[in-house]
Amino acid sequence: MWVVLTGGTGGAKLIQGLSWEFDPAQLTIICNTADDFFLHGLSISPDIDTVMYNLAGLSDDARGWGVRGDTFAALRQLEKYGCEAWFQLGDQDLATHITRTKLLREGRKLSEVTDWLCAALQVTAKILPMTDDRVETRVETARGEISFQDYFVKQRWQPEVKRVSYAGIESCRPAARVIDSIQRATGVIICPSNPVTSIGPILAVPGIREALQATPAPVIGVSPIIGKAAISGPAHELMKAMGSEASAAAVAECYADLLDNFVIDHEDAESKKRIERSGIRVTTSAIRMATVVDKRRLAREVVALIQE
Amino acid sequence: MWVVLTGGTGGAKLIQGLSWEFDPAQLTIICNTADDFFLHGLSISPDIDTVMYNLAGLSDDARGWGVRGDTFAALRQLEKYGCEAWFQLGDQDLATHITRTKLLREGRKLSEVTDWLCAALQVTAKILPMTDDRVETRVETARGEISFQDYFVKQRWQPEVKRVSYAGIESCRPAARVIDSIQRATGVIICPSNPVTSIGPILAVPGIREALQATPAPVIGVSPIIGKAAISGPAHELMKAMGSEASAAAVAECYADLLDNFVIDHEDAESKKRIERSGIRVTTSAIRMATVVDKRRLAREVVALIQE
Repeated sequence: MWVVLTGGTGGAKLIQGLSWEFDPAQLTIICNTADDFFLHGLSISPDIDTVMYNLAGLSDDARGWGVRGDTFAALRQLEKYGCEAWFQLGDQDLATHITRTKLLREGRKLSEVTDWLCAALQVTAKILPMTDDRVETRVETARGEISFQDYFVKQRWQPEVKRVSYAGIESCRPAARVIDSIQRATGVIICPSNPVTSIGPILAVPGIREALQATPAPVIGVSPIIGKAAISGPAHELMKAMGSEASAAAVAECYADLLDNFVIDHEDAESKKRIERSGIRVTTSAIRMATVVDKRRLAREVVALIQE
Repeated sequence: MWVVLTGGTGGAKLIQGLSWEFDPAQLTIICNTADDFFLHGLSISPDIDTVMYNLAGLSDDARGWGVRGDTFAALRQLEKYGCEAWFQLGDQDLATHITRTKLLREGRKLSEVTDWLCAALQVTAKILPMTDDRVETRVETARGEISFQDYFVKQRWQPEVKRVSYAGIESCRPAARVIDSIQRATGVIICPSNPVTSIGPILAVPGIREALQATPAPVIGVSPIIGKAAISGPAHELMKAMGSEASAAAVAECYADLLDNFVIDHEDAESKKRIERSGIRVTTSAIRMATVVDKRRLAREVVALIQE
């Protein structure tokens, strides 16, 4: 059983590759939930949904979010009612949020709700929220503190970031089966997701980092950065705000206590020595996943490193 | 200012006619809310929505409910998630329920939410819920007590009805401006709506019937029944369950303490004398509103009776 740590877009691509190349039922995916937020009174879990839609074969891979072929009739009407429409909620996607919100209000945990949604979509991989408690990534900008979705989607990651924090992280607990899955894993994959706002919150959940340090299973990471830029999203800006350099090597250093092997792009081959000085083995590959072929190949390469 | 008492479909047709023939801003529409219910965690107010969509020019007049041209992508997805799909919620319609639910959860009253929605849809008539409190029409059948929507929509009014009650009615209060509107009205119209489940609950809200008895304004009713059958819906079955005959004359008797004039169909002309014995003047007309022309003509006729 392989444990996969992931955020949304970048991680979901590698997870697609893994699910196509191997039996998805052997994947336990621990998802970031610090981006979760409320909109129009609905509970939205963007990373869980992205991963779930990808595994269900519903994702819009060109766009990177939402359901393929979804329509936006409800959102247009919500706009007429004066609701903010900066977060693109499709009609089918809305059904996910309506169902989640209903079940949460009935007292179910996010992990139970996720099980319910995945079962309905015949997703056989296990998707676990990092925690069932409320954690919220807060982004401190020159104009004050805002939520991650506000920063990332509404303001299109334009504001300068001073600091990122995870409100609620100290008192949250890992969701059921998270620690157990890590302890029983035969391999751990840290996806090419944002180290500050996707993987960072997962590792900050009390007990998760310790469990990953303790696991005898190989831990393989894939860089979300090629050269000086993130493959997608604001990893670059956020790493700099956290006082770190924005590079594959700097990402490896974030996970230095965990990684057995780190996969970087051929373009970053000159970082190999630097990373290896932290005791991490480095594999260079083509890590940009533009096509189905790329996703499948990178998935096979990562699994080969686990099985080495 | 005219006050209009209404349920959904039948009443909404007459209200359309009134709004086309006269200035809608002079209409205050008191809507039944005893059919309101929760579905998928959302607060649904079917009668308010039907009237609102009709006045906004959004209604699907052929179908009698919902938004014209609406799509059902969210509902299809909700079905996949195991949600009951017997109540046809369109995507645009869903935006109404999402907005209402959000505003109610934020602590607004249903009357405030209705104002908000109407303003957004540029509805200039005033739509008032009969009450901001929770009242629920319960239908007692051979198989137990069910909600009105369960009886009416899910079971397509097939179960035999033993009794109808309005849970919560004794302790509810009329919404703000309901009593005041009746007191200041220059005419009151009781729409051709179900006397048991649409007009019945409105008249049972403490204070409303008394205000209508006391008003010096003429009160004009329109029969929802032609011959032995309701123009639409289960008025016939429900009246019989309440121990009443199902006829225009029996409807007039339900409102005998209120009505100055009752409009019945030419087909029921032989009931005229019987109704007049209750001290109500009777006007015979063609009351089936199949076309825009019918709606406009009946609206003019009703207003003529007010102005007589």
